Amino acid sequence: MLTLTFLGTSSGVPTRRRNMSALALQTGPGPSWVLVDCGEATQHQLLRVKLSVRDLEAILITHAHGDHCYGLPGMLASAAMHGRTTPLLLVAPQVVLDWVEATRRCGDLYLPYPLETLALEDAPAMVLERPGLCIDRHALLHRVPSVAYRLTVTRRHAHLDGDALRQAGLPRGPLWRQLQDGKDVQWQGRTLRSAEVLRHHVEQVRAVIAGDNADPGLLAEACADAQLLVHEATYTRPVLDKVGPERLHSCAEQVAAFAEHIGLPNLILTHFSPRYDHGDGMEQLRREAVLQYSGQLHLARDFEQYRLSAEGVLEALGSVRR
Amino acid sequence: MLTLTFLGTSSGVPTRRRNMSALALQTGPGPSWVLVDCGEATQHQLLRVKLSVRDLEAILITHAHGDHCYGLPGMLASAAMHGRTTPLLLVAPQVVLDWVEATRRCGDLYLPYPLETLALEDAPAMVLERPGLCIDRHALLHRVPSVAYRLTVTRRHAHLDGDALRQAGLPRGPLWRQLQDGKDVQWQGRTLRSAEVLRHHVEQVRAVIAGDNADPGLLAEACADAQLLVHEATYTRPVLDKVGPERLHSCAEQVAAFAEHIGLPNLILTHFSPRYDHGDGMEQLRREAVLQYSGQLHLARDFEQYRLSAEGVLEALGSVRR
Repeated sequence: MLTLTFLGTSSGVPTRRRNMSALALQTGPGPSWVLVDCGEATQHQLLRVKLSVRDLEAILITHAHGDHCYGLPGMLASAAMHGRTTPLLLVAPQVVLDWVEATRRCGDLYLPYPLETLALEDAPAMVLERPGLCIDRHALLHRVPSVAYRLTVTRRHAHLDGDALRQAGLPRGPLWRQLQDGKDVQWQGRTLRSAEVLRHHVEQVRAVIAGDNADPGLLAEACADAQLLVHEATYTRPVLDKVGPERLHSCAEQVAAFAEHIGLPNLILTHFSPRYDHGDGMEQLRREAVLQYSGQLHLARDFEQYRLSAEGVLEALGSVRR
Repeated sequence: MLTLTFLGTSSGVPTRRRNMSALALQTGPGPSWVLVDCGEATQHQLLRVKLSVRDLEAILITHAHGDHCYGLPGMLASAAMHGRTTPLLLVAPQVVLDWVEATRRCGDLYLPYPLETLALEDAPAMVLERPGLCIDRHALLHRVPSVAYRLTVTRRHAHLDGDALRQAGLPRGPLWRQLQDGKDVQWQGRTLRSAEVLRHHVEQVRAVIAGDNADPGLLAEACADAQLLVHEATYTRPVLDKVGPERLHSCAEQVAAFAEHIGLPNLILTHFSPRYDHGDGMEQLRREAVLQYSGQLHLARDFEQYRLSAEGVLEALGSVRR
């Protein structure tokens, strides 16, 4: 139902193993995908996975910090150079949209495709809505306005009630296909209505992708019926206490305790301070989180892919780096 | 005298092996260095070489195309996050400086160091001048205003004329050191003047680093007493003829013929179209160039380092990727 590919999991600056924030989301079955945040060199990360900027449907920026948006100019320019002509939606704070406009004025950047922009300040709660996918936003607490995006992925299946059709004496064949396609059919002098013999089945999963945030509790409502939260854990508790609260980031303990409190089944932590990218840094973060959280816990790495099934089960598929 | 480290050698878009334009220049002996152009993810390339953004003295942008400047926001932000406090010089077209200003307004990018900017349109011909290093600029032909930067690296040595001192009967020792340090000394009732026994020796090399350019001949004067030209060779001749002249790039044949014509001893080609980054693409470019040029020819690769000696000899040091 939902495939997540982490393209960047470091906070602030890149390390040799981790780029800055970017997360690719595929809801299938087509190649279309959505990008949440676009740190510098996100287009470089794309060179190493099976995702093309040509199939990118929308870019959603959580907040106006460089490590979440400095990859936009290159991404937009490369989409142009790869010959994209289909519209691209960009949802972002107004200052980011202004900056993208300033970028288009710098040099002669021509985009041969419509860039449809939506300022978060003016946007409705539902920033993207189409068959199969709704994305709404939820306010967070950070040094600049920051949001979480909640994806609701819906798949509708309709199958014929075979028992009812056999009872009506209708033999398998073209007429069954017509009913499956929503068309009524005539049979032995009476009308068989598609609506009466089609059984509908709806599958739905929900995932919340949070931007930088110092207060996970703000996501209680958004996460109420979600199967997955992707949230920053920039620090461990001791480091957060040391750097002080004014940076308005979360520590692993805090996010894990929140996820436990609301009974969330799956939690992926990301956006780690580069200080944890060596030695047992990642283990420090993990140890802190598992003390609080009894659900499925993952600490994201660049190029790792996860799949959330219709049953809400999260499967870790490992690295998809080519 | 001059060490060159190629941080990006692709044109337009990155490939899996080549990033976009950026060239680090060290004139020694200290760690200070200068960057010509700053394509997206140049800061990522720095993670793999022995160069720190803390020691970066100046960034010189050749022209306002994204593949030469989209790495600026991240580079400036990372310098801030690494605690830089010393001034940084940025020389660039005014539109690039305007864009950097727009970047500073986006989000809360605070630079704890003075960013000293110089617009190419208003700049004197000599854009940087300090003991040991002068950099002047030379206009090129491209779709937007583009320049070449010429580095003149000078090293002055002063050594005592030992014969003269021995003739004067002055024994080796502290008095020799005083004379070496420029101080006059008293010896057997007379004054030995430092200026009269110090012999000065000046070493100088010149290298021209060109931005995008369709007319190498424009560099005839700048290259007249240079030992090295670094120039784009975006295409081979057949491809240039096919894409047409309006992109205002050079082909390998054209640059090589120019270098031969002016008798240039060393030529490094760079800024290759991604189409040459597989198969025998690079060999196609090389074959075209060697037919025209009898000097030392190199086709740059990312992370390759070169050293230009005081005698004007260019040594290829290979990859310095860590």
